Amino acid sequence: MNFSSKLIEEAVNEFSKLPGVGKRTALRFVLHLMKQDAAEVNKFGGAFIKLRNELRYCEKCHNVSDKPICEVCANPHRDASVICVVEDIRDVMAIENTQQYRGVYHVLGGIISPMDGIGPSDLNIETLVQKASAGEIKEVIMALSTTMEGDTTNFYIYKRLKESNVTVSTIARGISIGDELEYADEVTLGRSIVNRTLYENSLSFK
Amino acid sequence: MNFSSKLIEEAVNEFSKLPGVGKRTALRFVLHLMKQDAAEVNKFGGAFIKLRNELRYCEKCHNVSDKPICEVCANPHRDASVICVVEDIRDVMAIENTQQYRGVYHVLGGIISPMDGIGPSDLNIETLVQKASAGEIKEVIMALSTTMEGDTTNFYIYKRLKESNVTVSTIARGISIGDELEYADEVTLGRSIVNRTLYENSLSFK
Repeated sequence: MNFSSKLIEEAVNEFSKLPGVGKRTALRFVLHLMKQDAAEVNKFGGAFIKLRNELRYCEKCHNVSDKPICEVCANPHRDASVICVVEDIRDVMAIENTQQYRGVYHVLGGIISPMDGIGPSDLNIETLVQKASAGEIKEVIMALSTTMEGDTTNFYIYKRLKESNVTVSTIARGISIGDELEYADEVTLGRSIVNRTLYENSLSFK
Repeated sequence: MNFSSKLIEEAVNEFSKLPGVGKRTALRFVLHLMKQDAAEVNKFGGAFIKLRNELRYCEKCHNVSDKPICEVCANPHRDASVICVVEDIRDVMAIENTQQYRGVYHVLGGIISPMDGIGPSDLNIETLVQKASAGEIKEVIMALSTTMEGDTTNFYIYKRLKESNVTVSTIARGISIGDELEYADEVTLGRSIVNRTLYENSLSFK
């Protein structure tokens, strides 16, 4: 594309670095910004600079937080002996939204992926092992995705936690509520039969 | 959505002001930015602030430009007596990409749209009328969209230019090259018959 201004070209290039944003969408964003008040645009650009420069992570669980200890870890009503291991903060948000989990989290900041050059040392795994060997934890719930990378990470953490006296569990895999059996893939359907639950435990009301 | 940090919430809110971006996409953008170097993110946010504060418009055609007169208007090989009237800079880019047009442009900065509270005085129409009455122009080519708002704007400008001795034309409407007749809408097909061109003029090679 041939831009009549270097400033526009620069702004379009910056926007198109975002995931899933091409040059055309980026130009649409730029034209939108050009029509806004200068104060609005200053706030827009400033929000990201502020985010990157001021963002802090919880010292305990590595979740994003404005304070040294995040709200979940600081909450005395949460069970600190149960830790749910997740990939990033989106997973924390998703689980928090269910309002079913009363333990705390441990955010890895990614998963082991040799293809992308991400090894165990790039992730927050050591602090999890330390917590476990300090004897503070009863159970670690693995809530990673069921990709090759997720399984590798699961297995690596399982091996590292073996010495500590910690139960390692994974979230249940099965047929989604509302899904039809005939459209389910075999692996999921197979797992849902092997890992069946007692009928009285499956009721959401008790 | 329940964010663990005010900074993230703010950044998500800013991104979701962009056209077609919802909270989920905005969060994806924010997580992407969080993983970048601080210098990268400063450049990202700064590009938009710089764009809004430093952007200038061509004094002649209102196209976006880094200099007081844009490249098209400053080019002595372009025919300044033919003016193509367009809605915004995207249209200029689209026409420039065809490499078929040797005249200059006039960017309105929008179209008349009473529903959105945009009247003729909000657009760059006066300067076009002045150029026409100064006798500098032979032809004005209207290249606005064929919506109700586009037609209204066409008609308003046509009326304003009537006193000056200027030919007002519109770009040709017809069946797109490569399209099949049976799928064309009636209005377009009807217009393409009424406004038919001589066969020898329709050849792209001459």
